[in-house]
Amino acid sequence: MRIDIITVVPDLLKSPFEASILKRAIESGHVEIHLHNLRDYVADNYKQIDDYQFGGGAGMVMMVEPIDKCISNLKNQRDYDEVIYMSPDGDRFNQKTANALSLKENIIILCGHYKGVDQRVRDHFITKEISIGDYVLSGGELGAAVVCDAIIRLIPGVLGNETSALTDSFQDNLLAPPVYTRPAEYKGWKVPEILTSGNFPKIEAWREEKAWERTKRLRPDLLDETEK
Amino acid sequence: MRIDIITVVPDLLKSPFEASILKRAIESGHVEIHLHNLRDYVADNYKQIDDYQFGGGAGMVMMVEPIDKCISNLKNQRDYDEVIYMSPDGDRFNQKTANALSLKENIIILCGHYKGVDQRVRDHFITKEISIGDYVLSGGELGAAVVCDAIIRLIPGVLGNETSALTDSFQDNLLAPPVYTRPAEYKGWKVPEILTSGNFPKIEAWREEKAWERTKRLRPDLLDETEK
Repeated sequence: MRIDIITVVPDLLKSPFEASILKRAIESGHVEIHLHNLRDYVADNYKQIDDYQFGGGAGMVMMVEPIDKCISNLKNQRDYDEVIYMSPDGDRFNQKTANALSLKENIIILCGHYKGVDQRVRDHFITKEISIGDYVLSGGELGAAVVCDAIIRLIPGVLGNETSALTDSFQDNLLAPPVYTRPAEYKGWKVPEILTSGNFPKIEAWREEKAWERTKRLRPDLLDETEK
Repeated sequence: MRIDIITVVPDLLKSPFEASILKRAIESGHVEIHLHNLRDYVADNYKQIDDYQFGGGAGMVMMVEPIDKCISNLKNQRDYDEVIYMSPDGDRFNQKTANALSLKENIIILCGHYKGVDQRVRDHFITKEISIGDYVLSGGELGAAVVCDAIIRLIPGVLGNETSALTDSFQDNLLAPPVYTRPAEYKGWKVPEILTSGNFPKIEAWREEKAWERTKRLRPDLLDETEK
């Protein structure tokens, strides 16, 4: 899988791809991440990529031309499955979208900054708008990192133990059950006895029950989705 | 405002705080960010912070003791308004939570990694669990960065122009209207005439109409919330 990220602040995105699971996924060849600095696609010496909005108002808007040049340059080199724009009014990102995107070959992620991109970019170049949640960030960069993390860890072979991803929250519309590790007692707080019983069928049943209980209490909407 | 982030991969979090708006907010003294490496709170030479789960199953669990030590050490130095744990089954983070958190003085954010933290940490140390969305990430670090970005940009004085944050999506439960910048025509694609008319009351009315239209089409649930 190849992901091209277009941004005006490539520096912001460095460390998330240089640590932990994403780093290992890149090193093991499961994914290629290419960061593109939008300013490299501006001809003038000022490297201007944004300008005031038409009609007035606070906040700068990213111009069409540098984005067009960058995307076109990439598209000339290979086919892309999706050209994604990170935006608070995009489709809400969830585990289902993560699963679907993890099967793609080449995707472009455009990160907006400031007040966002000129609407003509969204109308003519973007195939999918994604929001990671109902909140506003300074730019699309952290959203892009979140999307990359969520999809890359699903690529077979990226996680050491594949069953680890399959038992995560949301994969079956259930929240994960509580987990415990050593010591069995800490400051008087004990782990549930069943977990140290060695009775694995009972442990599985307990976990399932807890997962349902927790989902029902915290996120009953997920159970509704399962019934649909 | 002071934010203490507890993590096993502090490197992952470096660049988001060294670029763009977050960097400026730190440099101008609006916020202090302190990254704490959980391994510094382990006495043994192996720096072990996680262990297998009780009851078996894939994925490692972060142990209580190092987390207890780190949090207690911080609490001995000052009072904290919240001790937040980033978790996919936490309360869904949204702009309202961002507004509320931006008014706090001191907060701790604990990032889970691997299979998460021992449940006893959540039961005894955490005052608030936050999820940035319905998807699973390799760890809580990107979620913590997202939360920090969303709240820090709301601190008065952090954004160059304060009205810029106030006209963002979600602040009034409406998505933002489309924005345009120069050139007025690009490859035959023109900006809406109204925006170059100079008639500001009409422009405002147009923007409001577009914001409603876009919200109704893409996120009718936000309008329901307004009516409540």
